[in-house]
Formats: sequence, C-alpha cells, structure tokens
Amino acid sequence: MNHPYGLAIPDVQSGADERRIAIDRVGIKSIRHPMRIAGKGGGIQHTIGVFNMHVQLPPERKGTHMSRFVEILNGRDREISIASFEAILREMVGRLEAESGGMQISFPYFITKAAPVSGVPSLLDYNVSFVGEIVQGLYRFTMKVLVPVTSLCPCSREISIYGAHNQRSHVTVTVRTPALVWIEDLVRICEENASCELYGILKRADEKYVTEKAYDNAKFVEDIVRDIAVILNTDERIEAYTIEAENFESIHNHSAYALIERDKIKG
Amino acid sequence: MNHPYGLAIPDVQSGADERRIAIDRVGIKSIRHPMRIAGKGGGIQHTIGVFNMHVQLPPERKGTHMSRFVEILNGRDREISIASFEAILREMVGRLEAESGGMQISFPYFITKAAPVSGVPSLLDYNVSFVGEIVQGLYRFTMKVLVPVTSLCPCSREISIYGAHNQRSHVTVTVRTPALVWIEDLVRICEENASCELYGILKRADEKYVTEKAYDNAKFVEDIVRDIAVILNTDERIEAYTIEAENFESIHNHSAYALIERDKIKG
Amino acid sequence: MNHPYGLAIPDVQSGADERRIAIDRVGIKSIRHPMRIAGKGGGIQHTIGVFNMHVQLPPERKGTHMSRFVEILNGRDREISIASFEAILREMVGRLEAESGGMQISFPYFITKAAPVSGVPSLLDYNVSFVGEIVQGLYRFTMKVLVPVTSLCPCSREISIYGAHNQRSHVTVTVRTPALVWIEDLVRICEENASCELYGILKRADEKYVTEKAYDNAKFVEDIVRDIAVILNTDERIEAYTIEAENFESIHNHSAYALIERDKIKG
Amino acid sequence: MNHPYGLAIPDVQSGADERRIAIDRVGIKSIRHPMRIAGKGGGIQHTIGVFNMHVQLPPERKGTHMSRFVEILNGRDREISIASFEAILREMVGRLEAESGGMQISFPYFITKAAPVSGVPSLLDYNVSFVGEIVQGLYRFTMKVLVPVTSLCPCSREISIYGAHNQRSHVTVTVRTPALVWIEDLVRICEENASCELYGILKRADEKYVTEKAYDNAKFVEDIVRDIAVILNTDERIEAYTIEAENFESIHNHSAYALIERDKIKG
Repeated sequence: MNHPYGLAIPDVQSGADERRIAIDRVGIKSIRHPMRIAGKGGGIQHTIGVFNMHVQLPPERKGTHMSRFVEILNGRDREISIASFEAILREMVGRLEAESGGMQISFPYFITKAAPVSGVPSLLDYNVSFVGEIVQGLYRFTMKVLVPVTSLCPCSREISIYGAHNQRSHVTVTVRTPALVWIEDLVRICEENASCELYGILKRADEKYVTEKAYDNAKFVEDIVRDIAVILNTDERIEAYTIEAENFESIHNHSAYALIERDKIKG
Repeated sequence: MNHPYGLAIPDVQSGADERRIAIDRVGIKSIRHPMRIAGKGGGIQHTIGVFNMHVQLPPERKGTHMSRFVEILNGRDREISIASFEAILREMVGRLEAESGGMQISFPYFITKAAPVSGVPSLLDYNVSFVGEIVQGLYRFTMKVLVPVTSLCPCSREISIYGAHNQRSHVTVTVRTPALVWIEDLVRICEENASCELYGILKRADEKYVTEKAYDNAKFVEDIVRDIAVILNTDERIEAYTIEAENFESIHNHSAYALIERDKIKG
Repeated sequence: MNHPYGLAIPDVQSGADERRIAIDRVGIKSIRHPMRIAGKGGGIQHTIGVFNMHVQLPPERKGTHMSRFVEILNGRDREISIASFEAILREMVGRLEAESGGMQISFPYFITKAAPVSGVPSLLDYNVSFVGEIVQGLYRFTMKVLVPVTSLCPCSREISIYGAHNQRSHVTVTVRTPALVWIEDLVRICEENASCELYGILKRADEKYVTEKAYDNAKFVEDIVRDIAVILNTDERIEAYTIEAENFESIHNHSAYALIERDKIKG
Repeated sequence: MNHPYGLAIPDVQSGADERRIAIDRVGIKSIRHPMRIAGKGGGIQHTIGVFNMHVQLPPERKGTHMSRFVEILNGRDREISIASFEAILREMVGRLEAESGGMQISFPYFITKAAPVSGVPSLLDYNVSFVGEIVQGLYRFTMKVLVPVTSLCPCSREISIYGAHNQRSHVTVTVRTPALVWIEDLVRICEENASCELYGILKRADEKYVTEKAYDNAKFVEDIVRDIAVILNTDERIEAYTIEAENFESIHNHSAYALIERDKIKG
C-alpha cells in the first residue's frame, strides 16, 4: 500500500499513549564506541566501550527518540571521556526530556604489572563496567571490576601427599560509591586476597614464586569473598557492594561459586 | 613439602570460621545435565539444562560441601524431572544443612507450530529459565521465557513510500508466580503482542501472510512491552513481572530496548 | 508501491542467474532441534543439536529452497536420529537437487563415569560435532570431540619446592573416518593422555587421588598433542586428524595452545 | 614430595623429545593487548586486539618458550602498531628459533559515516582480523572484515501486497593479498552490495531513505555473495578470497547462509 507523503514526514513517536503505563527503561543497547579513561598514575588509556543507555518514559509519552542517544555518543570527541561520565548522563536525561535515566559502559582496562622476582613488566587486562543513574536529579554511580586470579584448594592441599589442584578464577567486585575509587584500588584488593595474582610474563624464577605463593595461600571461594568483605566493610567510601568468586575448577567441568552482598545504607 | 597423612583424610571445610561473615550464596555454577519436562499438551520433552545451585552459609561455618550439590543432580534418574523442582530444591537445602538456598535451570524448550496458511508443522525453540528459592522454609518460583519474534517499525512504515524496516527481536518475560503457568502460555502472550511470530517452515503463501501481518502490526519496543504489561497486570496468577523487548535493528548495528518491571505485592 | 498479485505467487528463486558464478555453500545455519544418539553401551541418549545444512549451487541456478532444509529436520520423528546421519544427508542433497552438500550437527554428549576411588557415578558432558559431506555422490564423515581435562605444568613442578600450577584444559580431537569410531573411544584417548581426567562427583579420597595423579603426570600442551598423535597414527580407522590442546593457564590470563594435523591419505 | 633445588632452576622445555613428532602450531591464544592502526584517511585509531601467536616445533624439540610470545607483545610501545605487523611476525619466528609461525589479531575498527540525507556523521563498528604467516621465510597476509548490513528478501517483496521482510545480516570477506588493501575498501564493497548499509544515527529523512533503498535492492544471500565475487574476481590485488553472507532472518529463528571461496593461484 502506498503511503502518501508530503514535505513533512510525520513524527510517529510524539503522539500520546492510551495504555497509561510507564516504561522503566527505554533506549539503546550494545553499541560500541571508542573511549578514553584516566588511570591512577595519571596516564590516559584508550579502549573500546560497549554502551547501554536508557531513560524512563512516563505513561503519557508514546515513544522515546532513539537517535538522540547515539547523537550523545557521537557529539563529543571521537573518543568518549570517562571523566565526563556524570555530565554525559545528565546531558542524556536532559535531551531525552526524562526525569530518570541510566547508562552502562563495559570496557577492557589494562594495568602494567612487574613480575614478582624478575621485575619484567607486562600488561594484564581486566573487565570493567561503570553504571550511572540519574533518579529525579540525584546521581548514583556503581563500578564493577572482574579480576582474573589463581585460586588453590585448601582441601586438596591438606589431603594430598604432594600437589594441590588450582585454577584460574574470576573475582568480581561491584561497589556503589559517591567518592572516587580507582579501578587499580579494587583490582589490588582482589589480587591480594586470591591465592595468587596473574601476570602476562613470568620468567622461571617468577613461575617458581607464584607456584609456591599459591600453595602457601590456599583459599576456598568462601575465603576469597569473606576476606574481601572484611576490607570493604571498613572502607567508608563504599556504600554498597557485591563480591563474587568463581573458580573454573581444574578437577571438574563446572565452577565453584560464592557471593556476598551488602548495602550499608539500607541495611 | 610433604604433608604427613594417616588413614583419616582431614575435613577442611568443617572447621569454624573466625571472620563472622555470612555468605549469601555458595555452591556450583554452570553444570550441564540432561532433564525432562512435561509440556502443556501432556507430552514429555527431553532437553539439556544448565544448572546453578547455591545455599546460604552462616557466619560460623567455614565452607559448604560442593560435591553434595552434584550428588543431588546425579542421585535421581539420569534425567532431572522438572515436575520435582520444588522437591529437588528442598532436598538440596536439607542435605546442605542450610536455611536458605536456590537453584536456577536454563534450558531450550521446543513448541510445535503450524504455519499460518499452509498448516505445515515445524518446531520453534525458546530459551527458558526456572528459578526457585527456599527462604527460611518458604518456596518462591520464578520463570523466564525468551521468545524470538518479528518487530516492524511504525515510523519507518509511516514515512516511507514503500516498505518498512523490520528485524528479529527478543521478547523476554520473567514472572514470579505461586500458581502453575505453562511455558506455552507465556510464549503465546509474547508472540501475540509482537508484530508477528516466527516459524521454522514457511511456504510461499505463509511468507506472504507473515510479511503482510507484520506490516499491519507495526510496533515500537515501547508498544510491545506495554501491550504485554496490560495483559500481565490482569493475570491474577502473576505476583511480579519483568518484560523486556530487544530489537536487533536491521538499519543499525545496535539494539533498541525497553523494560517494564512491577511487583504487585511490594507495590 | 503496490505489487499486483494474482492467484499464483511467483517463485523468485527459480529463475536463471546471469552472473555465472557457482556458490560453494548455501543453506541454513544455527537451527536447534532435538536429537537422539546411540551410545557405545547401547543406550539411547536424548540431546539438543545445533544444525548447519548446505548444498552447492551451480552457476545457472539463481537460488536454493531454504524451507526444504527445515522440512528435512522436521520430516522425521520429532527427534533426529544420528543413526540415519548419512541417509539424512543424501535426502537433503536429493531434495535440493544438488550434486554436493554437507551438514554439521553440534551437541552435548554425556558419559557416566565412576570416581576413581569411591566409585561414585556421575555424568560428565562433552561437546561433539558430526560433519558429513556428499561430494558428487561420495560420502565423507568427520567427527570432533572436545574433552575437558586437567593439565599440570612440568616446569612449575620441577622448579618449585612444593606445588605445581595446573588448570582446566580443552583437548579437541577431529577425525575423518570411514569406519565406526565411538565418541567414548575418542574421549578415552584424550582423558588418558591428559595429566588427569575430570569427574562430576569427587569424594575426599577421590580428590586426593586426582591431585596426586595430575602431579605424577605433568604434561605441557606439546606433550598432550604428541601423545595423542602417536595413538592416532597407528589407528587404521582414522584417515586424517587434527589434535588441539588449550590450557586455560592458572597463572596467566591467556591460554597455552598446541595443534597437530595430519592427512594420512594426502600425505 | 620435596623437589631439591639449587641455585639453578632447570629448564624443562629444552630437552630433546623422543616421540619424533613435529607440532604444526604451538604458542599462546586469546591474549588481549592495546593496539593502534592507521586508517585510509591517514588518522591513527586506537583499539584493543585479541592475539593468537604460534610457531612450528620440529620433532626433536620438546617444547617452546611461551613467555617469549608475550615479551614480543610487551616489548614495543604499550600499543602494538599494525604498521609493523610483518616485522613483529619475523621477530617472533626469530626469537622462538622457528622456521614457520603465524599470528592472528582480531579487533574492532571504526569508520565515520555520514547519514545519507541529513549528512549527520556517526561511527560504525566492524570486526576485523589480520592473519600473517611466515612459512620458511616467505610472508603471507590475509585480512578478514565482518560488515553488518541490511538485507531485504526479494521473494517476500514480490509476493506481498505491501512490505518485505528484512533483517540485519553479516557479510564477511576474507582476502589473501600481497598488496595493500584498506579495510575501508573491503567495507565499501560489502556495503555497496547489500540491500542497504547501516548507520549509527538516522534522522527521519534518512530512515525513509534507507527503508526505500533496501526495498529497491532486494537480495538473497546468494545474490550478495555472487555480486561481491564478481568484484573480487577482477581485483588483481586479491590472490584468494572467501565471501560469506549470513542473514539473521526476521521471520525465522535461524539464519540463511551462503559462501563462495576461490584461490586464483591454486585454481
């Protein structure tokens, strides 16, 4: 069927809606875009973010303006700067004429580490997410860091004549905070509370060191999450947290898993 | 270092813990196991589930008994039967000596559909999750169904002389319910509120039908989630729900997305 | 623009093509369907397959008949039986009027294993693919099995006072064979040539056993692939093979990897 | 068991191997690292690469030196520069004392596009892989680009009174070339031979344009791959190619797929 059209192209999303149901989140999902972020030492890191952006839609509004979200990503420098995360969020909520909205950015982040004996430097990669929300003008920020580590099993060590099963594990810490918390700080907490941390380059003396260190620091997933909880409980910058540890067990084809969550404000 | 060992192998997890921190969830994750489930028509369907199982751990307990979770999966028939989902969950919490615990099973589920004009039958596959929790003896059940559909854009249809961009979309409905709700029923709600539903086999007359039907039923993601919310609001079996629609936009390399959530009990 | 239509619906794919370019593969991809397969012991296992199906298209043909592929999946019992794999393939090539074609089915497969000391039985899951081709009437079959195992590092063991880093590894064997080779047989070859195999349930005595066994059988990825190659070289049923080992290193955030391939026919 | 150790830490990989089997590929897999690449216009783009690096291992050598691969990644600027891809590869083969080796880098790549009517600029992201091999001193380079596009079905358009089903599709072109071929050039070939290309930002006039353009350029997967083959056949820079098109069909829950491959040298 032909749709007759004149010089004006109708704006279908701008009509009123009759169902009278608000929508909690409407927007775009899984859009990739270059970004840059300042590190704890001061340097600038270039990386690639995957963005989800949404606003709340009141009952009377029929639809949102999807292209405006993409304009916000493309309207600044080619690379989105994380320093302006709150500003971007407020701009988004403003331009989409909403009272509430949120944005999540997930990106790889690299830290230079020195091997523990040889000192040889190499990068290690971590998965980071920043989540911001504006709820009736108030800004809330949550960050999440996934840190790959070594975990070694205390039971296996105790009961075996020699050796102890160990594996790569993922420790994920999610914190809600009004203050500045560096990615590097959360990474340190996770790495220091695993059996041992990971390195890109390990020379033979380093490999001996990490093998023995993991053996000396046997921990169940229960230990890893509790030890991190002890630290986050006393860190006043942190209002709420979730701590997860997942061991990709070397002796099974499934994972061992533990989670602790706490909201210090809500109790 | 040798670990001297006698005839007894120490039970490392059974000691007391000094950090005095409870763990909200500890258990196993991502274990695959065959299962069977009864369909609405009465037939039995065999499929493969991915299981996550956890219990709560009180502050004084050092660790859980990971192998007991796997014993529960392997202790019945080779195939886990969903009919006994609550029973399995209560057995798990009992055997792990916990007050609370939960289990999530994710599995593909098939429904036979007849093409709309030719009537040729074919299977369509859906992703389903069952989530059960026991909290201090009380059982709560949530089910989630991901339904792939066609969505066609009202704006594109209105403003174009001919054609309208359309795409595959995922509509996901999560409901908490004390009553029996068939997977088939949630699937119907999603399929009836998309622009059109999907079929495995479409002969030419069917392809004409679905093309024109989608064109007649243009819907934004906002419309899809609102129309489903209208229905779930009046379904008394449903205590709480989350409705999501994600369009894999054919004109962009990102998705349009909308979500509505409501808990009728908590308000 | 209206398309005038009469009672006949044009068959667009049946015209001749002017570019005169053959298409090596045309068909459908990533379609899920229930299936069943006989195991080595004789029992029938129900599982879910992901199917890719294609035929070759000669230069003069404009297009294939996509729905016929789906009809072949849906035209038999609800569950596709692997026993008829070659028959399904020949039916596909015939119904699509092609000289050549192929089909790939990927599915999870479960084997019951007894824990090494306690004898407690549990399932372990493996990823299997069957690939069949008909090339001008001749049938060729390739099977691929991904076996998760434990690998323990010889270097780490030699240089450390105690302990040795180990991890979950994936050993993948792909074999082309005119004879019957059981999935269970390829799995055994991989499991026997790792540092140790995996089990779903391990009681304490079993955990001690596997910890010490892995330590006694330290192997690099180079060793794993070479040891399997020695065996496959002498197995006359196997015309060609690819062997891969990937360690998800517990001390790094990357994998160690090795591959050997050999075609005994082509040399 | 204690391993006595002195000041020297044994080099376990340096012994001779008795199985006398060469290994085709040994190295590291799935390591992420920042990189930069020059674009066709001259600018430098920062992105994140996933690297696989391997060498061949002769029968007499027991093992390779895994850490040397990581040293090559970390031994230059923090960001690997693609301009030195062949140099990195030759360095790798040299430092690992091998006759043959290869490297694969997969990374997201962004191109600025102007919306077709409004001219509003926005980025679009593509998945690119570079694969280099040194075989006995000779260097071979292959590049692969995955381009997301719109495809619209000719059959659906012809048989329907109004509308035509369309969807997002992935067109992937892999070319082996001794000459310089810009990513932008391969992207253009794919985008110009789809029903329509994608854009990040589309204002209403642009959405009308792309909707009508796709409708005017209805193509099966068979057409997309043939049209691109016609072009690559006449491009003398290209020695060999593989062309794939995968439609994520909006009316089915599976994909339509086609592939053409040709090696102009081998015939």
